[in-house]
Amino acid sequence: MSFDTETLVYDAKGLIPAVAQDAASGEVLMVAWMNAEAVAKTLETGRVTYWSRSRASFWVKGETSGHVQTLVEMRVDCDRDCLLVLVEQEGPACHTNRRSCFYTAVRAGEEVIISEPIA
Amino acid sequence: MSFDTETLVYDAKGLIPAVAQDAASGEVLMVAWMNAEAVAKTLETGRVTYWSRSRASFWVKGETSGHVQTLVEMRVDCDRDCLLVLVEQEGPACHTNRRSCFYTAVRAGEEVIISEPIA
Repeated sequence: MSFDTETLVYDAKGLIPAVAQDAASGEVLMVAWMNAEAVAKTLETGRVTYWSRSRASFWVKGETSGHVQTLVEMRVDCDRDCLLVLVEQEGPACHTNRRSCFYTAVRAGEEVIISEPIA
Repeated sequence: MSFDTETLVYDAKGLIPAVAQDAASGEVLMVAWMNAEAVAKTLETGRVTYWSRSRASFWVKGETSGHVQTLVEMRVDCDRDCLLVLVEQEGPACHTNRRSCFYTAVRAGEEVIISEPIA
């Protein structure tokens, strides 16, 4: 079946969450949002493109930082309301210069920083 | 720093997305939603508990199916508006009886089913 971005289920703002996972290591790098056009751009260009809710504009990941995400594969979940993008991540995915945005663990009721900036 | 569920950033409906990842294999299993109380229940009980948007009730994963998720570690992202839960997954995570909900890949513009039911 041909993939049609219009068959995805978007929220009231026209957005769908996308989980970015390192295709090689399996590390979950970040979660951001796409609209239908961002999904299409990601597939067309092979450069993972989100919709920035704060800037209300397309966000080609790494366009300014150089920390690009090259699409390896896009997957859709059973409810069609979430995406998984397997990527090759250049450098850190997080704006804190950490590889992953998920660098804070909750251990025995305390927040623990489990990774440091790499760039 | 002590972890306080109130310091997370919830959407207009009081919900935060949670990515469930197999702690052993790294496979991304599913994405669902929690409210502050579901986050607290998950940490207190070690049984991953979501908020079902369709049923408007707590959803202790696997309570009826037996396909429970035992919490290994909860992580918070840099914006505090998304959670990653590393889990031990009993059986399939997906209601289609597949291990992961992300069983549909987009390859060369076509949807391809990449895994089959295991139960």
